Amino acid sequence: MDFENCYADRLAEAIEKKDSRLVVGIDPRLDRLPEELTGLEPEDALLRLGSGVIEAVAEDAAAVKPQIAFFERWGWRGWRALEGVCQKAREQGLIVILDAKRGDIGSTASAYAEALLGTEPGTPGPHVDALTINPYLGSDSLEPFLDRVREGGRGLYVLARTSNPGGAEFQKRDGDADPIFLQVARTSEQWGDGSRGECGYHGVGLVVGATHPEEISKVRECAPGASLLIPGVGAQGGSVEDLGPAFDSRGLGALVNSSRGVVQAFEKQPGIPWQEAVQQAARETRKQLQGAITS
Amino acid sequence: MDFENCYADRLAEAIEKKDSRLVVGIDPRLDRLPEELTGLEPEDALLRLGSGVIEAVAEDAAAVKPQIAFFERWGWRGWRALEGVCQKAREQGLIVILDAKRGDIGSTASAYAEALLGTEPGTPGPHVDALTINPYLGSDSLEPFLDRVREGGRGLYVLARTSNPGGAEFQKRDGDADPIFLQVARTSEQWGDGSRGECGYHGVGLVVGATHPEEISKVRECAPGASLLIPGVGAQGGSVEDLGPAFDSRGLGALVNSSRGVVQAFEKQPGIPWQEAVQQAARETRKQLQGAITS
Repeated sequence: MDFENCYADRLAEAIEKKDSRLVVGIDPRLDRLPEELTGLEPEDALLRLGSGVIEAVAEDAAAVKPQIAFFERWGWRGWRALEGVCQKAREQGLIVILDAKRGDIGSTASAYAEALLGTEPGTPGPHVDALTINPYLGSDSLEPFLDRVREGGRGLYVLARTSNPGGAEFQKRDGDADPIFLQVARTSEQWGDGSRGECGYHGVGLVVGATHPEEISKVRECAPGASLLIPGVGAQGGSVEDLGPAFDSRGLGALVNSSRGVVQAFEKQPGIPWQEAVQQAARETRKQLQGAITS
Repeated sequence: MDFENCYADRLAEAIEKKDSRLVVGIDPRLDRLPEELTGLEPEDALLRLGSGVIEAVAEDAAAVKPQIAFFERWGWRGWRALEGVCQKAREQGLIVILDAKRGDIGSTASAYAEALLGTEPGTPGPHVDALTINPYLGSDSLEPFLDRVREGGRGLYVLARTSNPGGAEFQKRDGDADPIFLQVARTSEQWGDGSRGECGYHGVGLVVGATHPEEISKVRECAPGASLLIPGVGAQGGSVEDLGPAFDSRGLGALVNSSRGVVQAFEKQPGIPWQEAVQQAARETRKQLQGAITS
């Protein structure tokens, strides 16, 4: 694969250029806006908050991860804002990972792939580098997305082990000789066929929560070519110090997500401009993650 | 629960009043439009096709199931059309099941619940009776949706066993003493607590593909209070004759989905108005389903 057509290599370049493993989750909460953005219509507030965060983190984050639910929450106007936010992030040179966790079959899966990784104007697709998806419906349900990986140079992150307290209920059941999350991890090496870059990773990554650090090592063993997307640090209780096994010796192999810890940082620093507080939080988190690699 | 506040009872009434177990899936394909709708802008085409199908099936279908992916495919304009289609269906007295298969955790799950079962103008939520969701993230991920079931009288259909060829890969693994899809089915009885209607069913149903008729019986045993949503007849290979075990002696307990078989029926009858072809197909399918109950 050439560089433009290889998600894994574009991501590796972004990580190395900025020396950053940080992905900032954009989960805009209109009930927790900076003072100067209050009173706007929802669409304007979403767009201005999202764009403001992107500007503030552009130097320190390798990627941003708009969480589609917080846009969808406002209906079609929220979707229009989402398109604008993805476009803004792309213009700022950030990798854009759309957190959608879609999963469906056949022609419906194809429609989602076109909606979220497609090229139709008026959709976020043209501005998106990678997408999160849900594996419950099986490998054939992923095929339309995998086509975009192999032929379009896009990336995927498949849910393996989620960061919530109830994540084990189906993903890692008592009594299962082979827990589902490790089966998903192993299978991702097949899903990634044909999308491996010069960096050594392929285009089909895995979502593994920081709240289960011992399982990150297991996933890494089962899926050496998968880039990890790690949510759950900060508010959810995961610790950056435990994430060493996610990274290789070059500091590649994983992105660590921070959403509220960065986006809502202005709440803790009312004395300075809100974007400055966000920038400081992103910079601080980037540095913490540098520490996790070498430790 | 009173009638207005109980999805299961509203659904039972719709089924009995029309003597119909048919839910028509609205999966609008703009590359397969009736002649008279060609040449429109996508948003207009989606709205006019969806509304036209709704008018045509209103007497014979108990419910319609807009498939969100085929609207999302067209970005924010598609979402605006989706809102209009859901509103139209509600006005026609049809139960509206939004096929979204969302699944996420914490505040993100709450945002999806508000987006798709909420009350915000400009979203489909105010017009939607029930929603499909994905259980992979565990019971706690369903809580914000279950709140809408218990307090708002909405319904859910949780994916258990999907109709695609690869559905067994994670849902029913070789070697699992307790396959995931049956664990989901059993757990649905707890999810349904507090939403049971006078009809005997509760508000948390299950999606089980018609392509696995022997498993419908197993799900029925594990989840006697769950209303089933059964896709996969027709194009996917499932047979209406095999669906008897899904229904109780009153003919309640399941809705059977037909999408292309009804919506694209005009393609097989070019000589008559397209809505008439759709109506005939809906009527025919309704009758076939009546046969499945008594057999």
